[in-house]
Amino acid sequence: MSLTPMPKMKSKPLMINPQTVPETMAERLEKIGIILPVAAAPVAAYVPTVEACGLLHVSGQLPFDNGLLMVGRLGEDRDLAFGTAAARACGLMVLAQISAALGGLDRVERVVKLGVFVNSDARFTDQPKVANGASELMVEVFGDAGKHARAAVGVPSLPMGAAVEVDAIVALRAA
Amino acid sequence: MSLTPMPKMKSKPLMINPQTVPETMAERLEKIGIILPVAAAPVAAYVPTVEACGLLHVSGQLPFDNGLLMVGRLGEDRDLAFGTAAARACGLMVLAQISAALGGLDRVERVVKLGVFVNSDARFTDQPKVANGASELMVEVFGDAGKHARAAVGVPSLPMGAAVEVDAIVALRAA
Amino acid sequence: MSLTPMPKMKSKPLMINPQTVPETMAERLEKIGIILPVAAAPVAAYVPTVEACGLLHVSGQLPFDNGLLMVGRLGEDRDLAFGTAAARACGLMVLAQISAALGGLDRVERVVKLGVFVNSDARFTDQPKVANGASELMVEVFGDAGKHARAAVGVPSLPMGAAVEVDAIVALRAA
Repeated sequence: MSLTPMPKMKSKPLMINPQTVPETMAERLEKIGIILPVAAAPVAAYVPTVEACGLLHVSGQLPFDNGLLMVGRLGEDRDLAFGTAAARACGLMVLAQISAALGGLDRVERVVKLGVFVNSDARFTDQPKVANGASELMVEVFGDAGKHARAAVGVPSLPMGAAVEVDAIVALRAA
Repeated sequence: MSLTPMPKMKSKPLMINPQTVPETMAERLEKIGIILPVAAAPVAAYVPTVEACGLLHVSGQLPFDNGLLMVGRLGEDRDLAFGTAAARACGLMVLAQISAALGGLDRVERVVKLGVFVNSDARFTDQPKVANGASELMVEVFGDAGKHARAAVGVPSLPMGAAVEVDAIVALRAA
Repeated sequence: MSLTPMPKMKSKPLMINPQTVPETMAERLEKIGIILPVAAAPVAAYVPTVEACGLLHVSGQLPFDNGLLMVGRLGEDRDLAFGTAAARACGLMVLAQISAALGGLDRVERVVKLGVFVNSDARFTDQPKVANGASELMVEVFGDAGKHARAAVGVPSLPMGAAVEVDAIVALRAA
């Protein structure tokens, strides 16, 4: 499989060898065993994604485990393993929102930026390890195209007590 | 009135029925009773807005009520109603900065993203409801073009003790 | 020296007066006495910069002083002077990452946005003054092209205890 953009073949159509046809992202997700959650409805007066100028901005996503919000604070009542799992769950919801907006993940050219907000006690300083839960998911799903810029910071509280929130900017191929 | 982009009529000019002329955003603001505040000067060494690649990035704006900064912390000394009003005030200042930069709001094609930082006690988790003060303003002013992606998080402190800070990314029509 | 984009001379080549040849950014840095640090490796599973749609997104950078992380919390164990120096150090690392990614700073057309996260006690409200350490560096280096939009907020904790974290969006000239 190739994660590079599909070649543009308008000027010289050619015979496609079935073995070289890039797999779709749906096939890719199935192969690596990732099932996207149902895209969550925004918890307030905004929308999950906006496409403009070739970039898709994805709203901050909260972490769900089997439909239940993953709540708590790192350094207080939640450990690193929980935080990392929560960040991955946020990442899955980011992908679910992209997929719901675009009808799949195939238009994703590059994951540009993740913003990772970790519900943190003042003594907790492992935000990068927590954020890796989301970052490693992107590389797992998109390969090199999943390698992104990132800011990870601690925050004292998040919507509904969530342990992590992740927003994203993604570059898209033309529709 | 139509909030869709004005049709480009270069190739086939046509008679314009006065009843179908889109109102200007200034007329729109007057009709819905919104008066923008005077755009606040940056409190430090930066500028209120930067236009690049079709996007206008708007600096984090603080909430003012009749020229007085709305200070305090949600979950400590300020309630949800105050927070929501503060977020709306931040939103008004975002619009004032856009208007000051562009000579009005008519070039706004889409509100792409709001970042909402809520001065929060560790137990306060209603950041989405607070942020709706800014989000609902955008839809009130721009209709569908005001529907944006959003991240809302708690923070332990904001410049000069402000209760809320809101930054924004807006997609623009060509000048 | 001129910080405006180099004129495009393809259609009418002309004699260049040596005195009007724009200096390179490397010459500029040397003239103003700024030495960039070695670009720090990401502390986790992401990359320092991603270029997409004419914008370069730079990951959140931490402040180093002679290779040592500048840790601490404003309003608690660090004063304004330390915070401002830390923000400047973050800004230097932002520039180092841009330079490492692009082979120099000459493709920088405009610093679009800085996000400044200040490790803050709940009573500390001078985030704008801290953030100026990074903001003033950008103007020192790029002149008008360094004037950026900005959001500065307090956070309760940062990766590895850093005092400040700064991320950035920069508009680039075509390669």
